[in-house]
Amino acid sequence: MLTNTRTVRIEWGDCDPAGIIFYPRYFEIFDASTAALFERALGMTKFESLKAFSFAGFPLVRTQAKFLKPTRFGDDVVVDTSVTFGRSSFEIEHRLSLNGETCAECSETRVWVVRDAGGDLKSQPVPEDVLAKFNR
Amino acid sequence: MLTNTRTVRIEWGDCDPAGIIFYPRYFEIFDASTAALFERALGMTKFESLKAFSFAGFPLVRTQAKFLKPTRFGDDVVVDTSVTFGRSSFEIEHRLSLNGETCAECSETRVWVVRDAGGDLKSQPVPEDVLAKFNR
Amino acid sequence: MLTNTRTVRIEWGDCDPAGIIFYPRYFEIFDASTAALFERALGMTKFESLKAFSFAGFPLVRTQAKFLKPTRFGDDVVVDTSVTFGRSSFEIEHRLSLNGETCAECSETRVWVVRDAGGDLKSQPVPEDVLAKFNR
Amino acid sequence: MLTNTRTVRIEWGDCDPAGIIFYPRYFEIFDASTAALFERALGMTKFESLKAFSFAGFPLVRTQAKFLKPTRFGDDVVVDTSVTFGRSSFEIEHRLSLNGETCAECSETRVWVVRDAGGDLKSQPVPEDVLAKFNR
Repeated sequence: MLTNTRTVRIEWGDCDPAGIIFYPRYFEIFDASTAALFERALGMTKFESLKAFSFAGFPLVRTQAKFLKPTRFGDDVVVDTSVTFGRSSFEIEHRLSLNGETCAECSETRVWVVRDAGGDLKSQPVPEDVLAKFNR
Repeated sequence: MLTNTRTVRIEWGDCDPAGIIFYPRYFEIFDASTAALFERALGMTKFESLKAFSFAGFPLVRTQAKFLKPTRFGDDVVVDTSVTFGRSSFEIEHRLSLNGETCAECSETRVWVVRDAGGDLKSQPVPEDVLAKFNR
Repeated sequence: MLTNTRTVRIEWGDCDPAGIIFYPRYFEIFDASTAALFERALGMTKFESLKAFSFAGFPLVRTQAKFLKPTRFGDDVVVDTSVTFGRSSFEIEHRLSLNGETCAECSETRVWVVRDAGGDLKSQPVPEDVLAKFNR
Repeated sequence: MLTNTRTVRIEWGDCDPAGIIFYPRYFEIFDASTAALFERALGMTKFESLKAFSFAGFPLVRTQAKFLKPTRFGDDVVVDTSVTFGRSSFEIEHRLSLNGETCAECSETRVWVVRDAGGDLKSQPVPEDVLAKFNR
């Protein structure tokens, strides 16, 4: 299971004075979509998985996005999210569409991080248990 | 139909360094819940209703909220929203709960506004058509 | 020193399709204004004070706000913030104005919290050291 | 004048449960930094310039960002923003740094848009008057 699809309502408060989505809101949607993909694969929420796998999150190191067609409040957009794993990093692809038409595309490179003894975040290989859940 | 209930996922990005929801996010949830109540009563999205009823929105003039129990990422909270109409204003009540336990309560006073000739927002009585939809 | 004043620019992305500030953004501004008041009194940022005073934050338990006059992107608003201390809670008052005219008022009740042995947040009296800094 | 520099405080509410900035907040900072660059070049706020130049904004069509080092609440980061104009689009570069060390880099491609007779957004060449202000 390497893909997840969810529907998201674009809200009034997500939109700017031009009446279209304020683009940083797309990144909030993408971040939640990455979490949803992991939740589906691991069978537990991000809150639970932070404990189960003793990690501190998967911060972004790089992202790029294209905005092809604006969306606006009242739109129910569909987000398809997929992942490809490296060693301690992974690539996420999001496609956000409305009525089958692509409105935005985004790719992310994220790293799996833990806290070291001093409390700082450092990257670490994605646990085998996690990879196994995605490869089921 | 004067009440609406929806479920909202609290996301990682809604939470602060204490690990609990950053309270301004509750007001985003409440604003969307008010919109959802109107959508259900009017049978159209806020985007569509702005055109259908020639108005410019229903900005807040007053709100008060109590936060009884923190929520955190991964929580699926339930929001119950109800309305009582005055002439050009109306009162909204939100109750946000998790597993049946109330976590936050909020009341809002909002006004129905239109744009005058100069482009400024001014309040106006809620249209009879709108009230009729709620009283069905 | 029980009062702090700061100027905040209302940004394009803070505003909604009606062209005025989306009101949850006011609460983000108020939260940062409370932090700024503490920073000024304690002589250190919130990040530093969490360590210096071993606490976990000062979450809101209650707030009420009045919105008297809308603001919009490009406005440089002034926020005056003051505090009155109780035992483990305190009251904050914010007044947000534009060119001397009050646009929004907000009061907050917050509690000083620490983490207990189990990691949960619990309220605790505001430390004497903190109160002393405010009474200087 | 093709460059602008501003200082931005990272706030508590910008950070996530890992204690570092939630990356969509960077895009809010970058969007405001682009507006600040235009404000400086044009000598008026975005609100004023929308009227003066009869346009509807400069939405993003593409962005890419690298996150090199996390920032956290209490950090006062510096954002350097520069622009290169094409015909109806332009490229923006942001560098966000803390104590001289680069924490994030972002490039944006934006288009100058106006509303057509039907109210839809369409791109149009950046006005000569605007270009002249940047080339002074």
